[in-house]
Amino acid sequence: MIKKVLIANRGEIAVRIIRACAELNIRSVAVYTEPDRYGLHVKRADESFSVGDDPIQGYLDPLKLVNLALQTKCDAIHPGYGFLSENAELARLCERKGVTFIGPSSEVIAKMGDKTAARDAMREAGVPVTPGSDGNLEDVAQAIAVAKEIGYPVMLKATSGGGGRGIRRCDTEQELKVNFPRVISEATKAFGSADVFLEKCIVDPLHIEAQILADGQGNVIHLYERDCSIQRRNQKLIEIAPSPQITPEQRQYIGELAVRAAKAVDYQSAGTVEFLLTGNEVYFMEMNTRIQVEHTITEQITGVDIVQEQLRVASGMPLRYQQSDIHYQGYALQFRINAEDPKNDFLPSFGKVTHYYAPGGPGVRVDTAIFTGYDIPPFYDSMCLKLIVWALNWEDALNRGKRALDDMRLHGIKTTANYYQQILSHPNFVNANFNTSFVAEHPELLKYSDKRHPSEIALALAAAIAAHTSV
Amino acid sequence: MIKKVLIANRGEIAVRIIRACAELNIRSVAVYTEPDRYGLHVKRADESFSVGDDPIQGYLDPLKLVNLALQTKCDAIHPGYGFLSENAELARLCERKGVTFIGPSSEVIAKMGDKTAARDAMREAGVPVTPGSDGNLEDVAQAIAVAKEIGYPVMLKATSGGGGRGIRRCDTEQELKVNFPRVISEATKAFGSADVFLEKCIVDPLHIEAQILADGQGNVIHLYERDCSIQRRNQKLIEIAPSPQITPEQRQYIGELAVRAAKAVDYQSAGTVEFLLTGNEVYFMEMNTRIQVEHTITEQITGVDIVQEQLRVASGMPLRYQQSDIHYQGYALQFRINAEDPKNDFLPSFGKVTHYYAPGGPGVRVDTAIFTGYDIPPFYDSMCLKLIVWALNWEDALNRGKRALDDMRLHGIKTTANYYQQILSHPNFVNANFNTSFVAEHPELLKYSDKRHPSEIALALAAAIAAHTSV
Repeated sequence: MIKKVLIANRGEIAVRIIRACAELNIRSVAVYTEPDRYGLHVKRADESFSVGDDPIQGYLDPLKLVNLALQTKCDAIHPGYGFLSENAELARLCERKGVTFIGPSSEVIAKMGDKTAARDAMREAGVPVTPGSDGNLEDVAQAIAVAKEIGYPVMLKATSGGGGRGIRRCDTEQELKVNFPRVISEATKAFGSADVFLEKCIVDPLHIEAQILADGQGNVIHLYERDCSIQRRNQKLIEIAPSPQITPEQRQYIGELAVRAAKAVDYQSAGTVEFLLTGNEVYFMEMNTRIQVEHTITEQITGVDIVQEQLRVASGMPLRYQQSDIHYQGYALQFRINAEDPKNDFLPSFGKVTHYYAPGGPGVRVDTAIFTGYDIPPFYDSMCLKLIVWALNWEDALNRGKRALDDMRLHGIKTTANYYQQILSHPNFVNANFNTSFVAEHPELLKYSDKRHPSEIALALAAAIAAHTSV
Repeated sequence: MIKKVLIANRGEIAVRIIRACAELNIRSVAVYTEPDRYGLHVKRADESFSVGDDPIQGYLDPLKLVNLALQTKCDAIHPGYGFLSENAELARLCERKGVTFIGPSSEVIAKMGDKTAARDAMREAGVPVTPGSDGNLEDVAQAIAVAKEIGYPVMLKATSGGGGRGIRRCDTEQELKVNFPRVISEATKAFGSADVFLEKCIVDPLHIEAQILADGQGNVIHLYERDCSIQRRNQKLIEIAPSPQITPEQRQYIGELAVRAAKAVDYQSAGTVEFLLTGNEVYFMEMNTRIQVEHTITEQITGVDIVQEQLRVASGMPLRYQQSDIHYQGYALQFRINAEDPKNDFLPSFGKVTHYYAPGGPGVRVDTAIFTGYDIPPFYDSMCLKLIVWALNWEDALNRGKRALDDMRLHGIKTTANYYQQILSHPNFVNANFNTSFVAEHPELLKYSDKRHPSEIALALAAAIAAHTSV
């Protein structure tokens, strides 16, 4: 078994990994850049080391991280999500230097990170992909020709992109002409590659993704699916497991497709296969070769600790579960509490958390790295807390979500919490009838009054008030 | 459906009930005495009202509480646990004044509160009770005669007692003579009744209790059992669901006995039937006609929200579940975090919570009313937080328990948290081989070093340290 893990990440996912390590009696080593010196992951890890003053660079330097792992006698590195989690270079360096990379092989990361190579692999394995260009586009003329063949609207995508970035929809040839150089420019800047490709745009689809686990010893299972259709500009806001919108047959089919996809590339560790659904059609979108933000809701409905399984599999142990061991119960929802102001175009709202009190009670899980007095640094993702609720049925889960959002105290910054209350009350959401256009189609949900808790008003009025009046 | 509930309680159970009300869209009314003016239950309820300056009296005044419910247009009262929860007078007043009492009828409360009447009812229903006196004892001579017949050791018990109070073990006739007037005196003071009875003392039993739910419309189900054998002087410390120490046949039998017991007295609402197990023998001990502190772990393994079911049943709705709907999965443990100093004979350690940060992540639930800056009043129970963990199997649940206890920050007072870490590491506990004598038999578990978190040391050293370094 792995004895000591360097966690090449920060924030809530670093804390999540530290917890899994602690439960498996594995020592954890945190890294931090200057703004994160007092971060919760630094306090909770067994050891911690600075990786530089620059807020970002230390988290993005494979060589520095691998060398630090070696120096601190870590036998493994967990990359979390974001940063270097889907960077084949880190995995390759680990392989070369004899440090276990907690994830799939560098080869698999590279293949699935290259969206056209991934499409090719899936097509070969019999996993349906959207109609589109065979490989990367040579020039705008080819793009126009392919688009004419498959029909508008089309999606122009960066081959190395992911996470909803480097994507533009084109409804006409004119738009395609305008966007072509733009996406190339974005892709070059964001991902260091000018390769782009083109797909048929699936209009108003459901975003359904399957969680898979593979041990590299021939065992590949799925943990059912998540419905991530509630998104804004391709960024997920609320995730749900299982999907309340698909049939048992679709559930079965999607799980099987995900396992087929993972087997086709000799996958190891946890991964996610993302699909777009429209009517009865299911199309492969992409595979995320890492732990995802929303793995939590799958843990809630299946009871499986996905990060622990990653650690075990990376240690050379087989999966503890066969497909027949995996059952799901109830519904789980995850609310991504972002430090953003929904009423101001979701502009980031970084700054000091003047008061935080965790929601609790039945069916509530919180994954966060914030605390009262924490100053959310402006350099990173705006997601500052994951509020997860679970209940035996859909209606109860929605009511629990409302209660838990109301129960939480998070003052000093603007967040998306009240906006989620709006979504929870919308009939289309309640009736489980929504797709990826839901947020864009319902701008009226942004017209809510930011009712303040009496406690918050008291705080504002009386600066000298006793600390215990503000919970 | 009930529209508005007065919660005749305080602390974490009041908060628990408020949450269930919120999830069912029922308004909640909190009551408080002077020391609880800034309590979390006051802040979280929709409305709150003072019931006087005396710390205790307001929570123990049935007439005042029922009148307040009427004045505030509450259609129901939830008594929680402790205080008036098993006081037939409150239930009777509610019945008379047209307020719904959330619990069984006053008649059932009275019968099960009278331990000799309860024994009689159980015997009639075919539920095995321990050998003992038929009804209350007339005098010490009768006690000696009964003890001689059933054999020592015997337990001398207050007929109106409960919750582990008003009980003395007598190993010899001499001890029985000495204890007889003592228990009568204690019983008179604590429960207002001098009635006592006598039972065979079951040596080193398991304490196993079954959760039941009944709707008063003929539906009675059990939610499996809890193992509460880890206790000190009859006070539960760690509770487990399901019991890791019984066979499937025993589980089935205990569930059936509990349903039989509830049906025999026309029970309604949630209740607990407590049993003592020794070898293959199962003996009825008592029935608690209220929600229990440890209901949480049953919620974790079954998914059923027990307080919500209480509210529904009290509203005249049938149970939402049949016995065949109830399944359990995994193991849940509840740690009662008491404001006590285990190394100083568990003396209460009331005072200000200088820093509190809730544990979180997978499989962790917290029910508490404390917060940073809260001054734990010395007038009430010392239990200040319930930490509940869940995992798919026993070993994982223990590891999660250790991790979550370590994850929690609760400074300023002494607590039982570190002592529980000791128990979690003891081989008899790990191997699921313990009975109600475990705590008394292992005084060496009290010899641990109170390792302080680095953050706590920093706090002590540097008074002016920034708030965010203390999580």
